[in-house]
Amino acid sequence: MSRLLQEIRHNRLLWLLVFVPVVFIAERLQPEAHTRLFVLSVLAIVPLAALLSHATESVASKTGDAVGGLLNATLGNLTELVIAFTALRAGQYMLVKASIAGAIVTNTLFMLGMSFLLGGLKHHTQEFNRVNARLQAGLLFLATVALLVPTAVGDTSSAAAEAYTRQLSVGLSVLLIAAYGLGLLFSLKTHRGLFGAADHGEAGEEVLPLGVALATLAAVTVVVALVSELFVESVQGAADDLGLTPAFVGFVVVALVGAAAEMASAFSGARKNRLDLSVGIALGSAAQIALFVAPALVLLSYVVGPTPMTLQFWPGAVVMMFIASMTASLVTNSGRSAWFVGVLVLMVYLVFAMALYLLPPR
Amino acid sequence: MSRLLQEIRHNRLLWLLVFVPVVFIAERLQPEAHTRLFVLSVLAIVPLAALLSHATESVASKTGDAVGGLLNATLGNLTELVIAFTALRAGQYMLVKASIAGAIVTNTLFMLGMSFLLGGLKHHTQEFNRVNARLQAGLLFLATVALLVPTAVGDTSSAAAEAYTRQLSVGLSVLLIAAYGLGLLFSLKTHRGLFGAADHGEAGEEVLPLGVALATLAAVTVVVALVSELFVESVQGAADDLGLTPAFVGFVVVALVGAAAEMASAFSGARKNRLDLSVGIALGSAAQIALFVAPALVLLSYVVGPTPMTLQFWPGAVVMMFIASMTASLVTNSGRSAWFVGVLVLMVYLVFAMALYLLPPR
Amino acid sequence: MSRLLQEIRHNRLLWLLVFVPVVFIAERLQPEAHTRLFVLSVLAIVPLAALLSHATESVASKTGDAVGGLLNATLGNLTELVIAFTALRAGQYMLVKASIAGAIVTNTLFMLGMSFLLGGLKHHTQEFNRVNARLQAGLLFLATVALLVPTAVGDTSSAAAEAYTRQLSVGLSVLLIAAYGLGLLFSLKTHRGLFGAADHGEAGEEVLPLGVALATLAAVTVVVALVSELFVESVQGAADDLGLTPAFVGFVVVALVGAAAEMASAFSGARKNRLDLSVGIALGSAAQIALFVAPALVLLSYVVGPTPMTLQFWPGAVVMMFIASMTASLVTNSGRSAWFVGVLVLMVYLVFAMALYLLPPR
Repeated sequence: MSRLLQEIRHNRLLWLLVFVPVVFIAERLQPEAHTRLFVLSVLAIVPLAALLSHATESVASKTGDAVGGLLNATLGNLTELVIAFTALRAGQYMLVKASIAGAIVTNTLFMLGMSFLLGGLKHHTQEFNRVNARLQAGLLFLATVALLVPTAVGDTSSAAAEAYTRQLSVGLSVLLIAAYGLGLLFSLKTHRGLFGAADHGEAGEEVLPLGVALATLAAVTVVVALVSELFVESVQGAADDLGLTPAFVGFVVVALVGAAAEMASAFSGARKNRLDLSVGIALGSAAQIALFVAPALVLLSYVVGPTPMTLQFWPGAVVMMFIASMTASLVTNSGRSAWFVGVLVLMVYLVFAMALYLLPPR
Repeated sequence: MSRLLQEIRHNRLLWLLVFVPVVFIAERLQPEAHTRLFVLSVLAIVPLAALLSHATESVASKTGDAVGGLLNATLGNLTELVIAFTALRAGQYMLVKASIAGAIVTNTLFMLGMSFLLGGLKHHTQEFNRVNARLQAGLLFLATVALLVPTAVGDTSSAAAEAYTRQLSVGLSVLLIAAYGLGLLFSLKTHRGLFGAADHGEAGEEVLPLGVALATLAAVTVVVALVSELFVESVQGAADDLGLTPAFVGFVVVALVGAAAEMASAFSGARKNRLDLSVGIALGSAAQIALFVAPALVLLSYVVGPTPMTLQFWPGAVVMMFIASMTASLVTNSGRSAWFVGVLVLMVYLVFAMALYLLPPR
Repeated sequence: MSRLLQEIRHNRLLWLLVFVPVVFIAERLQPEAHTRLFVLSVLAIVPLAALLSHATESVASKTGDAVGGLLNATLGNLTELVIAFTALRAGQYMLVKASIAGAIVTNTLFMLGMSFLLGGLKHHTQEFNRVNARLQAGLLFLATVALLVPTAVGDTSSAAAEAYTRQLSVGLSVLLIAAYGLGLLFSLKTHRGLFGAADHGEAGEEVLPLGVALATLAAVTVVVALVSELFVESVQGAADDLGLTPAFVGFVVVALVGAAAEMASAFSGARKNRLDLSVGIALGSAAQIALFVAPALVLLSYVVGPTPMTLQFWPGAVVMMFIASMTASLVTNSGRSAWFVGVLVLMVYLVFAMALYLLPPR
């Protein structure tokens, strides 16, 4: 426990944990102050996500490479999963889908672009392992194809078309999870050697003892779930108050909040000229959401949701995911980077963010 | 003749030739048993395709490299051409187009992906000549652009638009055939050296004497034409009986049947670590259908069809061909392969096959 | 002045300058002979563009590399800018947009493809600096994404949507100009070393003295503006007379006229095996139009146009620009070229030109 406290003292991001009790108190006092609750829940989720990510890494580092990699790869986006699961239970499928699409686009473009930019400002040119970047970009490409098909083919005008989209979504979800599992088998087992430096744990950062890490993992997940509930309840009202479109909130704000912890790691890796790490986190995270979190939510919706959720997205979101995946392929292809590559990738993100920000409310 | 019999005894695929007389007898006895006739005609076409392909290679090996390559490159998809020609004469343009699009997608994704997977299961990583892969992927890209344009621009609402689509289709067909011819000139003549090992004939497989080969070519083409007629007649009824959508039958079943012989060669090449051969067959075959078979059928439709056929495809088919061509570019770009690359490519194919299988009948 | 005359005597393209007075006389005599005025104004613009381009290079060579590169990069497409500005003032937004889209597609496909083809016919294979090609292709990709978004998202049915498209167009224009500026900073300043041979001036061609060059620049710009006015006025009538669609005229004819001078340099570079130069001119010119000329025109439309112009293009034009940018990425990726690469790229251009040529008038 003292280790955990020491950790908290060391890492300034964790000081934000003070907002966890604050948000619950605020909710008791003024449940209708949406914007305040929204801001407070965002401030509370960020350090919880960092803690969750650190605990996952600590458990992973204790269990050996293969299991550890698996844990990291499945629990790495636990925050996003918990937020989306909360929205799913509330039947807010639009928010779920916007946050999935947003997380994919934000990780692929903002996290990757900012890593290239921050790394490039410090180092003239940087090199990274292309094999991992290609694997993740390939998985992402597959996922965007799978998310494109129900939107391209299905039209929900008739009852038959709706049943079709549901069946197809279940089938595609199973395919995507299978592809994700085989990808882990490939990168962690049969072709480990190709994936370069195995130490994906943060060098120089201390790991928690196994017991503390497991307890942290369990406890923080529960707290994240509770805060997520306030977040999901307040997000709509806050968007109205702030004059933001729901698309912008789901796509940009939720995605940035959910990925805050990974971003901290990716950016610090880039500045330390460990761009392998940054590219791995950014694209790996995007691939995980597309091939694991999204399909898992579709399958879970049959258990917990009011009605089944499909993989059919708003066409604009499909276009953005597709372009994000193409951008990732193009810029990681050469295995080299400089600051302007980061600018280009960030500009593509800004184009999308601007289009969503200005979108008139329907 | 004894050489041909010896060949048949040697190659077990050819034992299926027994179904050639069976399908004709079955048609006499029960012309209404669509599903049975469909299955029997499929079983009869597969060995005929293998024989056709072997005879073509034998003629090619006798005539010197340039003419041989030309023969292989123009007659290599004779089966597909004959099936499509039969459907064209019957005015079944939907089936013709579905089988063209399906052959392109199946060769690019299923044949290539399965080659990578089968090769990768036996060899840790495999290398192949990128130059040929790039040429074929480039031709395929051009063809998908040409097939995309009439669909993107043309809307068949007015009579003027219909005339436009017809004119454009004829013009594009001429362009595509010209590009294909120039591609042959490039790879067989001016830049032969870049295309690596010239012995594209199957090492270890005996070739037929020229006379036998030519006679086989002529005779088998006639038989394939006759069986194709039964196939085309029975396919619609069989699809209804089996509960399959026409799109699935044309796109997946016909394409797999037509390419059975090439697949046998491509997969055996991959297992023997001759991935150059597999990639060349898969992408070369797809490019040939897109740049030679499809345009040839459009031009032929003015001679034999009831009305002119256009290059305007169902938008979903255009999307699939475009994604297939992008996938081919992405995965062949590095010139290296491992089993998971095959899985990724096959998964894209499964996404499409699933979407077509579940499609509700209109 | 004698230097300028000597220059004119030396360069046969400049003999066409005789058409400058001819077109003004013709306009006085028969202002209604649209087709004749159109042809004469085209013949007059071509040598003026060459002169403009030469004067820009002369000024650039006098001012040191950084400023010179900047000048070249901002004034390089002065002809296109002046023509488009003239059309903008006349409120002919369809013509402005068609000529922007056409210039991007023509430079990317026709100029690049023809350079590869002409170079490849003389040299077996050619190599070029991939870094510059990648930078320009990346900028072009960003621009096509930015031009795609208003078309994909905006539907002009409602007043709110129209306001949205206008706001978005202004925002995107600022983003694109910023990206272009940062690209110049990158290639001319922070990472100059990566961009290979710095002497982008035509070796062997004499430069004009600074005073002559500046005077030429100013005078020729005025003349181009005057001729452009005749061109813009006559183009519609000429298109009707010649039976050409306005889309074809704007997209193909205007684009070829505007780029004539750059093409002369690019093709001569390719034949001299200086493919770096050709690729740089073709893609650099396309990127400049997409990221500088087009956004500048949007912003200028608030000052000089009758109503604000947006970045929303006809969907077919967006598809063509997107495919052109993908083609550029694919073919410049390897840094090597042979004649058939040029054929492939030209074929994509021919597909587009044919589709526009046959398009029925609305």
